[in-house]
Amino acid sequence: MNPINIVIIGTGNLSFHLSHFISSNKHMRLVQVFNHRKTKVATQLANSHNCGFTSNYNLINTEADVYFICVKDDAIAEVAKKLAPLNSKGLFLHTSGSIDISVISNCLKNAGVFYPLQTFSKNDTLDWNEIPILIEANSNGSLSKLKTLAKLFSPLVKSMSSQKRLTVHLSAVFACNFTNALYEASQQIMSNGVSKSEVKLLEPLMKQSFNKMLALGPKSAQTGPAKRNDKVTMQKHLTILKSNKQLSTIYKSLSALIISQQNEKF
Amino acid sequence: MNPINIVIIGTGNLSFHLSHFISSNKHMRLVQVFNHRKTKVATQLANSHNCGFTSNYNLINTEADVYFICVKDDAIAEVAKKLAPLNSKGLFLHTSGSIDISVISNCLKNAGVFYPLQTFSKNDTLDWNEIPILIEANSNGSLSKLKTLAKLFSPLVKSMSSQKRLTVHLSAVFACNFTNALYEASQQIMSNGVSKSEVKLLEPLMKQSFNKMLALGPKSAQTGPAKRNDKVTMQKHLTILKSNKQLSTIYKSLSALIISQQNEKF
Repeated sequence: MNPINIVIIGTGNLSFHLSHFISSNKHMRLVQVFNHRKTKVATQLANSHNCGFTSNYNLINTEADVYFICVKDDAIAEVAKKLAPLNSKGLFLHTSGSIDISVISNCLKNAGVFYPLQTFSKNDTLDWNEIPILIEANSNGSLSKLKTLAKLFSPLVKSMSSQKRLTVHLSAVFACNFTNALYEASQQIMSNGVSKSEVKLLEPLMKQSFNKMLALGPKSAQTGPAKRNDKVTMQKHLTILKSNKQLSTIYKSLSALIISQQNEKF
Repeated sequence: MNPINIVIIGTGNLSFHLSHFISSNKHMRLVQVFNHRKTKVATQLANSHNCGFTSNYNLINTEADVYFICVKDDAIAEVAKKLAPLNSKGLFLHTSGSIDISVISNCLKNAGVFYPLQTFSKNDTLDWNEIPILIEANSNGSLSKLKTLAKLFSPLVKSMSSQKRLTVHLSAVFACNFTNALYEASQQIMSNGVSKSEVKLLEPLMKQSFNKMLALGPKSAQTGPAKRNDKVTMQKHLTILKSNKQLSTIYKSLSALIISQQNEKF
């Protein structure tokens, strides 16, 4: 088959990883990078993949097969409106977990969502084979093309509605952003009590707990004072936190959550 | 040197792992297992290490060098009182993160704390080399003996007061029990939105986030709507959670925590 010609809109971390993978795959060809401003990062990205760059909507290649919209969530609607006058027959894809497909399908004829369920930093090495890609399109024809495209990236391709994708995104906020905030709170508590070199003492326990959670599931893996409903220990902990209202409140509500999780029968 | 003769009090998961390691080390000898009741688990533990078992306080070996008290937190004080009449010259060690040394040192002459900073399940394979051991004793002589003992288990031995140990324990509750509760909440949210086979979709993201947190530190690794103060996305998430008051409240307080963490300058 002819390679799929691709334009990337935006030059953030996801654009960086998408373009890198596209260039390495013979079934795809990166033809252009667009960014609303001509920045060093943007032109470097285009140059490194030997493709064109523009910051002018009127100069975007209208013959491409696929347009990846990799801009901030709150800019997607506006960008879609500016892309509409191109009248391209290509497939326009946004890449966000929390934005409804309608935000782009209401102004672009062939619209879809290509949401890689992963966190992207510029310097990470990624294995696309292990990244689930949640897809959605506004017609069966577009969905079929999108599925073919997504399978070039990963075997883990799932068709999913905008509403379900938002639920998955919320779930990811709990499992990644919120857990991360607790790791940070944990470090902050440690650093008040012990020397900086000792903050690392918790790492083996954190790794073991995380692996146990993956192996047994979080409910079975749970331990600690809240699970045992050990009021004496919880009270001692709250005494340490007494000058920090924010962490005391979180301590109480998460302990209550653990108690109710342990009582749920499923 | 002569091997250190050891008695283990209690037959839970920690007793299991301690006795296993003691038996494998030529510098230690497990001489007796005590449990307040004669259970199958208790006698099997003693038999498997070819040592004596008793459920009678009067028959506990009084000549041992070290007594590991591995009972539930709220039983430690009572057990210590029952061990006092033995008048043993040995070193009595409790193994809890949250119990003050005074709970045993007020009735036992040579008392200390041997707290392995790890979670123990019966079927885990553990590498003691990677487990930090927090120690404390009620005299310099006891501390010196305890340090020698602890170093047989792990190179990561730290002397720490009861108050600091409690702070470390609290920190571990945030980093392990509370994160685990959020992983469970995340699964629960997922399972309301998608099929059971799809719950596993989040695993690659969870692993990557956890590894990134270890590599960069949690503050730098943070991403997501709260970090961006993206009120539109947070409101969409809260709409999904509107019938679950407990998770809505936790969503709000953890989002606020992320915002304040990002604003802290340290």
